[in-house]
Amino acid sequence: MIAIDGDRLLADLDALARFGACETGVDRVAFSAADVAARRWLAERMREAGLDATIDRVGNVIGRDPTARHAVLLGSHTDTVPRGGRLDGALGVICAIEIARSLRAAGAAGGAIGVDVVSFQDEEGTYLPFLGSRAFCGTLDAAEIAAARAEDGTALADVMAAFADGPEPQRLDPTRHLAYLEAHIEQGPRLETAGRRIGVVTGITGIRRFRVVATGTANHGGTTPMALRRDAGAALVRLAGWVHDRFPALGGPETVWTIGAMAFRPGAANVVPGEAEMSVEMRDLDVAVLDRMEAALAAEVAAAGRGGVAVSIERTTVVTPTAMAGDVVAVLAEAAAAHGETPVRLPSGAGHDAMVLGRIVPAGMLFVPSIGGISHNVAENTASADIVLGCAVLAEAVARLCQRLAVASR
Amino acid sequence: MIAIDGDRLLADLDALARFGACETGVDRVAFSAADVAARRWLAERMREAGLDATIDRVGNVIGRDPTARHAVLLGSHTDTVPRGGRLDGALGVICAIEIARSLRAAGAAGGAIGVDVVSFQDEEGTYLPFLGSRAFCGTLDAAEIAAARAEDGTALADVMAAFADGPEPQRLDPTRHLAYLEAHIEQGPRLETAGRRIGVVTGITGIRRFRVVATGTANHGGTTPMALRRDAGAALVRLAGWVHDRFPALGGPETVWTIGAMAFRPGAANVVPGEAEMSVEMRDLDVAVLDRMEAALAAEVAAAGRGGVAVSIERTTVVTPTAMAGDVVAVLAEAAAAHGETPVRLPSGAGHDAMVLGRIVPAGMLFVPSIGGISHNVAENTASADIVLGCAVLAEAVARLCQRLAVASR
Repeated sequence: MIAIDGDRLLADLDALARFGACETGVDRVAFSAADVAARRWLAERMREAGLDATIDRVGNVIGRDPTARHAVLLGSHTDTVPRGGRLDGALGVICAIEIARSLRAAGAAGGAIGVDVVSFQDEEGTYLPFLGSRAFCGTLDAAEIAAARAEDGTALADVMAAFADGPEPQRLDPTRHLAYLEAHIEQGPRLETAGRRIGVVTGITGIRRFRVVATGTANHGGTTPMALRRDAGAALVRLAGWVHDRFPALGGPETVWTIGAMAFRPGAANVVPGEAEMSVEMRDLDVAVLDRMEAALAAEVAAAGRGGVAVSIERTTVVTPTAMAGDVVAVLAEAAAAHGETPVRLPSGAGHDAMVLGRIVPAGMLFVPSIGGISHNVAENTASADIVLGCAVLAEAVARLCQRLAVASR
Repeated sequence: MIAIDGDRLLADLDALARFGACETGVDRVAFSAADVAARRWLAERMREAGLDATIDRVGNVIGRDPTARHAVLLGSHTDTVPRGGRLDGALGVICAIEIARSLRAAGAAGGAIGVDVVSFQDEEGTYLPFLGSRAFCGTLDAAEIAAARAEDGTALADVMAAFADGPEPQRLDPTRHLAYLEAHIEQGPRLETAGRRIGVVTGITGIRRFRVVATGTANHGGTTPMALRRDAGAALVRLAGWVHDRFPALGGPETVWTIGAMAFRPGAANVVPGEAEMSVEMRDLDVAVLDRMEAALAAEVAAAGRGGVAVSIERTTVVTPTAMAGDVVAVLAEAAAAHGETPVRLPSGAGHDAMVLGRIVPAGMLFVPSIGGISHNVAENTASADIVLGCAVLAEAVARLCQRLAVASR
């Protein structure tokens, strides 16, 4: 078993949380002064761990094991949402540094397979979601960077000046990077509800998001008889009810769906709604499940247009599911078992850098419990013992994976 | 049959529509310069018709027949909503003046029962709904006037200065005013849809309006399993579906109900709604029907609080139904028949000054068709022939009513 130093890990997490500290959380959006300072600090920690560290022009901090030809890449991101938590992303990066340090201390470094560490930039999408991991994987073109702006209008190209002294964006090297592992807080309630401490992610769910609009005729709610109404709101209520009634049978056991937004226009108590709009979102690991739900929804929308109300549907977001690599999932589960834990195998309903990496390199994720399921909030937290255990399990999984990859590459 | 002068009627409507003319409609909100000028013009027209005209301090223009001890009161209002139509209210006031003139010309004036004419102030509620008719009926106290403000913050007490040279608010005199009749555009589609030209109003519907709020927990739409959600939006969708499914059986043939507003918070496509709010409104002439619907809704709301979602209901508006007087309804129907028309008997789902008057004096209303059912809009209109016919039917009804009242009072 690889020994990690839990106190050192927690101290580094605390030290990182001082960059952009905000009440009990952190406000460290990509390219903010706090983010830039944190990345320079991270590069120093990586150097102390014996890694060659660079901060490239998009802000990715990458530490390479100078003693190894091949490497398992460990990491996550250190940017946050505004007024976010201290662990979302940071946990995976600090665990990666701690594991690199511990493996070196254990004399495990210098083998055929080393450990590289990364903190990707702007996973949260202040300017461009997954900016760092997409640049690293070569799936981002210059035009996207040139067009990207924050909500307040600030151009990504302008704020990138903070890292203009860095090298060209570093790229994943398929001959070097044999796998990517990411530790992260769950950002949901499943581990806590199940009373488990370790989650092994089976994949990052695909997302289909739709805007559904009903168009009827706005009319006086007192003088328009029921039979003469073209009530866009009533049509949408019926459709939303159908979604909640029918999706349980159409989805799988892990499928989630959300009607997160609903609005009637003009929206006055005494006016029959002339227009109504809602969002419908569904997430699952299985494209076939998403296809089946989308087809059923589209058929119901087509049938909903009656009584002078037209209903239209537009697909606004598509994210393809990304399965985690079977052998990485297996080694994470073995490592958890080696620590006496029975992990929960679960999909991640939130996006992560592992989704971008997982499309081109074998990838896996380990989750630790989020207290109360809370994230993207200054109240976000995880028990210290769970953080230390998560890092230890990940370290064990990395050691086992490096060993297997070394055997395989001989 | 009493003869009215249709051309003179239409010319007066055109002349009045020049005060506050706005595209094809009128913008003449209460106490605006256009409203004040229109009221001074109306007082002149009343004087020309042989009436003693005054504009009292709230802006009501009242013309008294100086030759009669008793009178039937005819009228409506001449204020409009912003960017409103040329007929809403104005039609009833100009018809009243035309009928007073015509009866005088026919030598019908000077009998025991005369015709008084009124244009009430601020029926539309720019400052205080039914200000004029409520002041006239003595159901408005000084504190309400002192507190009333327009949406832009302007105090009613300040704008009332425009009529400060007028007498104390005139009051309905039960020994003089034996009935109140009001002609109005329908503001709905029923006459046009039925192919009829005259509507006789059976009553002004009561209104019950509710705010229904569901409170659950906002959560990540990707990471929160369906079984662990407290989805306020789903609870409200279910309740709204129940309203649309069950109210047809609970209401009567004339009942209308509207869910005019619905909103989810925070309202993002990827967040389970933590709070959802909707309005529910119902209108009917029969208090028992409204009671039955309200009780069923309250029971369903009480049952809807489950799965960690609480649902509350608050009654925000109550308007008591006002039946029109049976003998006035009968004489309006007879007058329509005398003109070869089969009237539609229908409730008014919109409020009118006749609702305020009808609580203390026998009242009746005559509707003419609204083209396309449109009102509160510059496109509001009625065929000229229908306007003239409506005035002629009302004149006939007034003549018959005066005759009967004179017999009864002998």
